[in-house]
Amino acid sequence: MQKYWRGFMLLSLSLLMMVFLIVGCTQKAPTQPTTASIPEGELDPAVWGKVYPDHYASYLKQKEQTKGNSKYGGSLPESHLKESPAQVKLFAGYPFSEDYNEERGHLWSLEDVTGTQRIGPKTISSCWNCKSPNVKPLVDKMGDAFWATPFAELKDQIKHPIACANCHDSKTMALTITSIPLLDALKTRGIDPAKFSRQEMRTMVCAQCHVEYYFKPDNKKVTFPWNYGLKMDDAEKLYEEINFKDWDHKESQAPMLKAQHPDYELFSTGIHAANGVACADCHMPYVKQGQTKISSHHLQSPLNHISQSCQTCHKQSEEYLKNQVIGTQDAVFKTKVLLETALSEAIDAIATAAKNPAAKADMMTQARSLHRKAGWRWDYISAENSMGWHSPNEALRILGEGIDLARQAQLKANLAVGTIAGGEAGAAAGKTPGAGTSVDAAGQGAVPTP
Amino acid sequence: MQKYWRGFMLLSLSLLMMVFLIVGCTQKAPTQPTTASIPEGELDPAVWGKVYPDHYASYLKQKEQTKGNSKYGGSLPESHLKESPAQVKLFAGYPFSEDYNEERGHLWSLEDVTGTQRIGPKTISSCWNCKSPNVKPLVDKMGDAFWATPFAELKDQIKHPIACANCHDSKTMALTITSIPLLDALKTRGIDPAKFSRQEMRTMVCAQCHVEYYFKPDNKKVTFPWNYGLKMDDAEKLYEEINFKDWDHKESQAPMLKAQHPDYELFSTGIHAANGVACADCHMPYVKQGQTKISSHHLQSPLNHISQSCQTCHKQSEEYLKNQVIGTQDAVFKTKVLLETALSEAIDAIATAAKNPAAKADMMTQARSLHRKAGWRWDYISAENSMGWHSPNEALRILGEGIDLARQAQLKANLAVGTIAGGEAGAAAGKTPGAGTSVDAAGQGAVPTP
Repeated sequence: MQKYWRGFMLLSLSLLMMVFLIVGCTQKAPTQPTTASIPEGELDPAVWGKVYPDHYASYLKQKEQTKGNSKYGGSLPESHLKESPAQVKLFAGYPFSEDYNEERGHLWSLEDVTGTQRIGPKTISSCWNCKSPNVKPLVDKMGDAFWATPFAELKDQIKHPIACANCHDSKTMALTITSIPLLDALKTRGIDPAKFSRQEMRTMVCAQCHVEYYFKPDNKKVTFPWNYGLKMDDAEKLYEEINFKDWDHKESQAPMLKAQHPDYELFSTGIHAANGVACADCHMPYVKQGQTKISSHHLQSPLNHISQSCQTCHKQSEEYLKNQVIGTQDAVFKTKVLLETALSEAIDAIATAAKNPAAKADMMTQARSLHRKAGWRWDYISAENSMGWHSPNEALRILGEGIDLARQAQLKANLAVGTIAGGEAGAAAGKTPGAGTSVDAAGQGAVPTP
Repeated sequence: MQKYWRGFMLLSLSLLMMVFLIVGCTQKAPTQPTTASIPEGELDPAVWGKVYPDHYASYLKQKEQTKGNSKYGGSLPESHLKESPAQVKLFAGYPFSEDYNEERGHLWSLEDVTGTQRIGPKTISSCWNCKSPNVKPLVDKMGDAFWATPFAELKDQIKHPIACANCHDSKTMALTITSIPLLDALKTRGIDPAKFSRQEMRTMVCAQCHVEYYFKPDNKKVTFPWNYGLKMDDAEKLYEEINFKDWDHKESQAPMLKAQHPDYELFSTGIHAANGVACADCHMPYVKQGQTKISSHHLQSPLNHISQSCQTCHKQSEEYLKNQVIGTQDAVFKTKVLLETALSEAIDAIATAAKNPAAKADMMTQARSLHRKAGWRWDYISAENSMGWHSPNEALRILGEGIDLARQAQLKANLAVGTIAGGEAGAAAGKTPGAGTSVDAAGQGAVPTP
């Protein structure tokens, strides 16, 4: 029997080797304390940090202000208006034309929301949303009265910047949705948040804030325009339906829409989402922190940790991967600048035409409507935080449409006050491409390149 | 000793299993005859086919006429002009406005080049280029006198459609470049074709024909505009420099450029090229033919063999992969149609303005120049054979620019004959977005969404 036993041992050993060979690369992050001693309802991240010191240390790194490896992002509070002066005109009549900086890390949320010149005496508490874990308990207490309450009135009760409690259950550490507007939007769309997988939750906690929203006209509640779907066109459809506007453009008088960082929505149309990648896969990769390995809580551009973020799936070099991102962003940026120029010229044309009492009213209305739609498309991509990287094709498609609409706004404004000799102005500018254009048979004799 | 022997046998067996597990998926195509008996200089594919019957059988499948799984391609000779009547106007004055069909397989090259209505009494032999393996020996014999020779004059000497000898050495079966224009273009760029790797050759044999080209004005030789690089902008730079035009647009009188299927150039800007993928990897995958496995010579859309073409690298489902391609193509198509509409309206505006003797000449020249540039961008993507798939970002970037230029052409033509009350026409239409637009401090009090 011994010889069979020895053979069996050797076979088992080598089968074991195969198993190691196959599963050896699947690494698990060391576990962290699971019996939390965080008081229920605790919102102070420093208290959570005593139980989870490594996560807390990682989270605190968000104080860092740096361009890092980003070309278009980073955590420096650089002025968009100084970088791109056209934006002053594009936002004319709206506070974004006065003060509009690149956002910093989550830890700066209270300094930044209270420090911006966009906040004034009429600012309401909707602007506290997504800035602090204190919001949820306040809404739970005050109900929908919260939203229209003057911003300054609740200042003393908003104590912490975005922190642990915005995304985690203090008892189980499970990911949890604490954003009232997201819970509302999911309800509207018939989605039960309890059914999200853990991987889906690694995106949905980000979708609490990194989304487009508006203030519901009746009670000023922060609301996501998701009734018809998540795409740019779906949000626009709703805004048109309810005649929503954020402001009247000071120069063109168009009823404008302001887009807010629709990161989640744009991402949802892209190839990473289609492959089940979550926000946290790229923005919160597993990293070494102290003596342990944790999901990074130093949220930043994945370009700052390509090996941990990208190379877990993509085996190309860091340089190749960085060039792919920057090259794509360059194309989006270039197209975005074309749209800024087109919008700027459309605004000039409408403003000039508006000074003329003979301007045709219907054409002016159309020009302003075109300005609104073009501006929305520009801002949707401009305010989004990835310079199109979250979904390059969709970003470029939207910008292409925007350019078309902005130039049409300019054309329409010119036509509203201009005359075209021959009286064919309308025909020249409003015609769709038609069939049946006559063709000169003489062209036959040319030297074509077949 | 026997017990050790038995143990050794079992260990060997299981190690062997591991080896199979690791290398089992790396399949080699069975070899084909290597001692060729093809006469030197033989051009008839049927003769080659006697030595390589499986490859020949695969090649013959290109006679197939089908839409296959393509949404925008296929090998049916469908009329682009019927599908998209705007193109009749876009090509007005050029034979493409009369007859322009989707291309069929390589085996149809002679039927299609002689059957198109674009061929007339003035057609020259440059149009034989890329249609037959007979071209190379003829150019070797006639020199550059070949190109301007009347098309009809050489008809009897052009016997075979695109075939084996266009890409293969008859002795070694090695891939070889037989296109004079490609050899010229590589020389211009300082590239030695002898240094191409086999994988590079699996793209370069396709780049013999699937490229943009023009007829050199002095001798009508087919020439690639690669002096400044492979990108759309590089070709345009050359065309501007040498004041090249393919035709004068019949309605706008703009000096137009016709783009020819720049498949290789667009592909070169894309992510597959960046990863060393060759044309043949997707369009000529390894397939079973008869009893053997060969590189498919039934050139077609990879959508018709996703498992062999895409799934060798991409592990997602066929349905997912198809949806990625079609979804991307849909976005490109939609943007292309916007450009067609913009071009059509620009043409109308220029044609209308041209009827007015008071039209400002400098503005009309600018409008025509803008029409030329916009038309070039449209055709570059429209004539390219992948509906943008070979490089979606670049395709969408180019179309976005085209829309901007076409609308600017329309604006400029309107301004050339129009007047804008207030006399600010120039200011309204020609200004670049400026800094320092004054901002109303009263905006401060609004209810912004920070």
